[in-house]
Amino acid sequence: MASTLSSARPHPLQRLNDEEILKAKDILAKSHDSGESLLFRFTYLEEPKREELVKYLAAEHQVGNTATLPNLPRMVKFVYDVIKGPGEHTLADAVVDIDSGEVVHKQTHPTESQAGYAPFEFAQFQETCANSDMFKEALKEFELPENFTITIDPWPYGGLDPDEAVPRYMQGLVFARDTSKDNLDANHYGYPIPLIPVMDFNKKELIRIDRLATGGKGDPLEPAAASATPKKLFANAKSAEYVPELLDDRPLRTDMKPINITQPDGASFTVEDSSLVSWQKWRFRVGFSPREGAVLHDLCYDNRPIFYRMSFSEMTVPYGDPRPPFHRKQAFDFGDGGAGRSANNLGLGCDCLGAIHYFDAWDTDPEGKPTLSKNVVCLHEQDAGIGWKHTNFRTSRAVVTQLRELVVQFIITLANYEYIFAYKLDTAGNITLETRATGIVSVVSIDEGKTSGYGNIVAPGVLAQNHQHIFAARLDPMVDSYDEGETAVVLEESHPMPTIDPLTNPYGNGYEIRRTPLDMAAFADAEPKLNRVVRLENRSNKNEISGKNVGYKFTPSATQLLLAHPDSTQAKRAPFAQHHLWVTGHRDGELWAAGEFTNQSRAEVGGVKAMVERGDWFAKDGEASNGNAAGGEGKLSTPVVWSVFGLTHNPRVEDWPVMPVEVHQVHIRPADFFTSNPALDIPSTKNETSVLVSGSSSCCDTKDKKADAQQEDPVSHMQGSGPDVKPKDIGSGGKDKDKKRLTSILSGVFGKKE
Amino acid sequence: MASTLSSARPHPLQRLNDEEILKAKDILAKSHDSGESLLFRFTYLEEPKREELVKYLAAEHQVGNTATLPNLPRMVKFVYDVIKGPGEHTLADAVVDIDSGEVVHKQTHPTESQAGYAPFEFAQFQETCANSDMFKEALKEFELPENFTITIDPWPYGGLDPDEAVPRYMQGLVFARDTSKDNLDANHYGYPIPLIPVMDFNKKELIRIDRLATGGKGDPLEPAAASATPKKLFANAKSAEYVPELLDDRPLRTDMKPINITQPDGASFTVEDSSLVSWQKWRFRVGFSPREGAVLHDLCYDNRPIFYRMSFSEMTVPYGDPRPPFHRKQAFDFGDGGAGRSANNLGLGCDCLGAIHYFDAWDTDPEGKPTLSKNVVCLHEQDAGIGWKHTNFRTSRAVVTQLRELVVQFIITLANYEYIFAYKLDTAGNITLETRATGIVSVVSIDEGKTSGYGNIVAPGVLAQNHQHIFAARLDPMVDSYDEGETAVVLEESHPMPTIDPLTNPYGNGYEIRRTPLDMAAFADAEPKLNRVVRLENRSNKNEISGKNVGYKFTPSATQLLLAHPDSTQAKRAPFAQHHLWVTGHRDGELWAAGEFTNQSRAEVGGVKAMVERGDWFAKDGEASNGNAAGGEGKLSTPVVWSVFGLTHNPRVEDWPVMPVEVHQVHIRPADFFTSNPALDIPSTKNETSVLVSGSSSCCDTKDKKADAQQEDPVSHMQGSGPDVKPKDIGSGGKDKDKKRLTSILSGVFGKKE
Repeated sequence: MASTLSSARPHPLQRLNDEEILKAKDILAKSHDSGESLLFRFTYLEEPKREELVKYLAAEHQVGNTATLPNLPRMVKFVYDVIKGPGEHTLADAVVDIDSGEVVHKQTHPTESQAGYAPFEFAQFQETCANSDMFKEALKEFELPENFTITIDPWPYGGLDPDEAVPRYMQGLVFARDTSKDNLDANHYGYPIPLIPVMDFNKKELIRIDRLATGGKGDPLEPAAASATPKKLFANAKSAEYVPELLDDRPLRTDMKPINITQPDGASFTVEDSSLVSWQKWRFRVGFSPREGAVLHDLCYDNRPIFYRMSFSEMTVPYGDPRPPFHRKQAFDFGDGGAGRSANNLGLGCDCLGAIHYFDAWDTDPEGKPTLSKNVVCLHEQDAGIGWKHTNFRTSRAVVTQLRELVVQFIITLANYEYIFAYKLDTAGNITLETRATGIVSVVSIDEGKTSGYGNIVAPGVLAQNHQHIFAARLDPMVDSYDEGETAVVLEESHPMPTIDPLTNPYGNGYEIRRTPLDMAAFADAEPKLNRVVRLENRSNKNEISGKNVGYKFTPSATQLLLAHPDSTQAKRAPFAQHHLWVTGHRDGELWAAGEFTNQSRAEVGGVKAMVERGDWFAKDGEASNGNAAGGEGKLSTPVVWSVFGLTHNPRVEDWPVMPVEVHQVHIRPADFFTSNPALDIPSTKNETSVLVSGSSSCCDTKDKKADAQQEDPVSHMQGSGPDVKPKDIGSGGKDKDKKRLTSILSGVFGKKE
Repeated sequence: MASTLSSARPHPLQRLNDEEILKAKDILAKSHDSGESLLFRFTYLEEPKREELVKYLAAEHQVGNTATLPNLPRMVKFVYDVIKGPGEHTLADAVVDIDSGEVVHKQTHPTESQAGYAPFEFAQFQETCANSDMFKEALKEFELPENFTITIDPWPYGGLDPDEAVPRYMQGLVFARDTSKDNLDANHYGYPIPLIPVMDFNKKELIRIDRLATGGKGDPLEPAAASATPKKLFANAKSAEYVPELLDDRPLRTDMKPINITQPDGASFTVEDSSLVSWQKWRFRVGFSPREGAVLHDLCYDNRPIFYRMSFSEMTVPYGDPRPPFHRKQAFDFGDGGAGRSANNLGLGCDCLGAIHYFDAWDTDPEGKPTLSKNVVCLHEQDAGIGWKHTNFRTSRAVVTQLRELVVQFIITLANYEYIFAYKLDTAGNITLETRATGIVSVVSIDEGKTSGYGNIVAPGVLAQNHQHIFAARLDPMVDSYDEGETAVVLEESHPMPTIDPLTNPYGNGYEIRRTPLDMAAFADAEPKLNRVVRLENRSNKNEISGKNVGYKFTPSATQLLLAHPDSTQAKRAPFAQHHLWVTGHRDGELWAAGEFTNQSRAEVGGVKAMVERGDWFAKDGEASNGNAAGGEGKLSTPVVWSVFGLTHNPRVEDWPVMPVEVHQVHIRPADFFTSNPALDIPSTKNETSVLVSGSSSCCDTKDKKADAQQEDPVSHMQGSGPDVKPKDIGSGGKDKDKKRLTSILSGVFGKKE
């Protein structure tokens, strides 16, 4: 696509292209000794510093384009291993300035900092298992039915036990697949084998195979001793097929008639510069990182900024089965694997309907060469039902408009599981963060016929363990101004007035809104009993109607927080998952709710808890009263808000073999940001493609038409517009059914006739 | 529409028709003295007793039709006034058996029991105001701009003050309308006048006009004394137009291109007998009452019952402005007015898109004559995005299906305000209760330039008062059996295991599910910190996979409950709004969360609180241990569940002049009701009408096709399916990019090749 904005120089927020990556990689390689080889793990656009970028953005919006603006450096951040010899890996990261050709930052990390897994490691792990005599020996404990083969799902090793000193491990869940079906997509998750091989990447070998307990209620936590004869598995197992051609006993339903969504005039959005999206007064840039997936930058409405940056930051999935080694089933799907890197290549007509635009992204292979990830983000509009409606009961005139959404969506696959992430912007000025959990629940083996308190039996011998999904979205607000220091965070609650008091609350119905501006970094929980709302406000700009600070607001989701014991490794790794709201001081590059290195972590390092503890303050006019008391690290900052929400997922049988989506939404809504309903100017066009089913008639036809652009069908039966029938004794008045009658009567009060 | 099932005799759950109403009315009239005249207020189908109807339904499902079944009586319930002379009204209700021609029940009610308002009363109220010298006199306090006329919105009188003895009152909010626009839909709500006239229906006159305080922060609660010269209103007022032809300063946007939803093969549902809906294994009957609107009866999936009856029961809207008389702004929109009677007549292409079926309902006029309410309920299917998806990372094969919903929707208008109610059933077996609040927020006059703690300024001189909307949905479950006594209600919570203990929880990650079966009627609150879930289970039927009782579940919505002081009239009228969950023993006809007579109530009578207090018990096998201890009224019953949720609505400027929808959903989901994902057999058909925007290419085209009925586009980049590139030192292994390679390697473990 030709861009109207692009020139030789990409916009500072443009996603990296292959040339840039290649150039930066070469610059970095030259900065290392010839005896060192580099293994590239994650490649990011190093975004400009916020204080520089906001000035650039302010100027861009003022000028209308970037042609005359001074350049900001284009930089690439690499996370990579420096390898001096077999097994001698040192984790490093470096920032390369492509323009100057310089490595502007470089550092190495200690052994305990483990980067997320790269794709090649999953392959390597599986090969290591396949070639392992130890693994073959362990498998002898079991007898599988004929025609079954072994399949292993790589998993992050999880949190380290207190006594472990681990260089870089990976564990795997072991399954069998029925090869008699002659279909590589026969579902192996229906056949779990109670073994977990553990690999050491430095040694390139399996160092241990954990045998798993397969008992039920009342059985010990430890696995039973292996018996002398192989244990027969899957005697009564039931296949768990989901690919349509294998649904033998349950053919596809044939009575679902198509719903087609067509946009005869095309989409209402435009995409310029491969990243700049404009739609219905919204304007933003789509970024993409291998860890976060799609990111929204510089989100504006009517040229007024709202968010500097918006992203999904982290997710932890701790399992609640206390039997070791299941305490190590705790994935950090962003930090351990990379949500962006796990993104599906989306297909037209497959994942969403209508007129779709797709975005690509460049990643790197382990050698640092650019690799194209096609169609990793999709963009489309959709109808979202009635947006607003009002019927004037006096005239029967209804005006009804549809709500429309623009959806920026990406879908990730993490072994068995899928997540669908979406940013939805709508014509009423709302922003919705949506997650949909789907895919295949993680299962382990259980002796047939037993049940467990640690999960649910979803097929004979198959235990789907209880677990949680706890997400953190990172909201970097910039409310109605590119001037730094203008954004404030205020908690707002609705409280009953405490007493019935003749002077303040004579009848006891009064309630009041209490505001608590956050002067300092802090955390808080959802409090639905108080209707706790987070307002993101501009400190200076007042709404000209209400006099209040213009802003946006959201209600923190009251979902269950992390259940693991506070002293557990699971809990120590994820303080972020223990409060619904974190408000921290902005520092460039600080994007990770659970810290940069979650893989094999013992504790959250550099996550939101640490950010709060350093005591940043937000007061515009200098220092907060106790700004530096918290420890000296704090400084005046602009606030970043982290919204934590989740799902305690105690699996249902219905979640098998692929679970129906479990949807969660966070609604971020304008709060006195506008001077009226921003959707007021949406046309109330009658849809001409809708059709009647089974002979009902349309009441639209029977009413007067008032204007071309609207309908005016409905009539409320309630207020006086019904037939003015008078039972014998009910006052005077004729049987005039003229709908204008009431209006005329009342006009008479002031002698005005119409 | 010709029905395949209908015969001379309607189904016991069929909505009343005009002949039945007329016949019943005549029977009732004959039962009264000739000196009495009747004023008909509400007309209901008197549903058969539950214990009789479930037997009928069980037989109907077994036989497949109703032709051979014994008849159940068709009965009509009237709520009406018996009038012996002017002003001598007695409220009564009666049940008429149409078949036998008998009045099988008749009772009168004391003066304090007030039926909801009937449409003719709204008209009567407005005429009374228009003809009132007292009202004209009161208006002299104000000077309106030229060309403004008076408009009055009737409102329920609200809760009675302790010292009031009131026969039947109504109050009104007074506004002015700009007649210079020559448009009867010019929005009068932008011009509130600080008066509330109060009418006595017995006297047929205004008995009082309340003057309203118009002050702001710091001003007294009482209105200022009237000044000697008329107060000029609306000097700086801003119009609040929303009808498109009056949007002078804000033309309709023109860049929103159409989204058309077409169903070339028609709808997937069928409607028989004007009420029996079948769709994608779902089957139910659509009822309608003037108080509840649409009701679902006998809701089944695959011929297995789930709910006997499902309805929206009540809603209260208390205002939090403590200044008298605003404590009387507390509507009960079902009990005071009738949600069904307020239902809009829906129009094709206006309120929803696609292939639509409409349902009509018969009501009565004050004389008892049948009146047809056209198109008061609509039925349509819609796409709801991805339903489930999984990508096999080994083969890159993705299977993705869309979720589809069937929507039963009705929309009510209550003076200024609108609610959209919907029951949504979907292909994953889920049931969603949805409410959308829209329309025009209730406003009062405030001195220009002032602000208030009791609401928000939405236009100069216009205060939108803080208020709440608290809904109660009534769920009458019948889980997987027509046998009475089989349904149980269980509260389920997820709790951390309390200690780190080597025997039970060695690493501290364990959590456990706790179940609390409800043996007796009870109330409870949402408890998101504990992930409190309500399970509706069959006591006997076990899921053959999990061994658990088959059931459905929902999470009570953690929304703010009633804020009014417990000793206030507002609170006493609505105990139902003070807990999220009520579980009561079923009694026929007990449909109202806040009791039958909410209008002018001082306290909730016969609502959920009283139902719980009588101490019904649910144990199948006879008496609960303390069944009768609670007071003697209790008896063995089947449980009915009431879900209470709401919205504390502190208006935003964006809610003006018509507010964008505020959506709330309750998700009722199968919980081990099925033996696998009920949507597993949904075809993963590629949508052929989707189109690309701006030159992105579809990855679907580049993959192998595995089966006609699916796509298999996406590939996860994460697990081993990426390019198997090996940096120098990383073990052995070729650069084979065959996606089957990993599978083959692992097959080697068991010597199995494919």
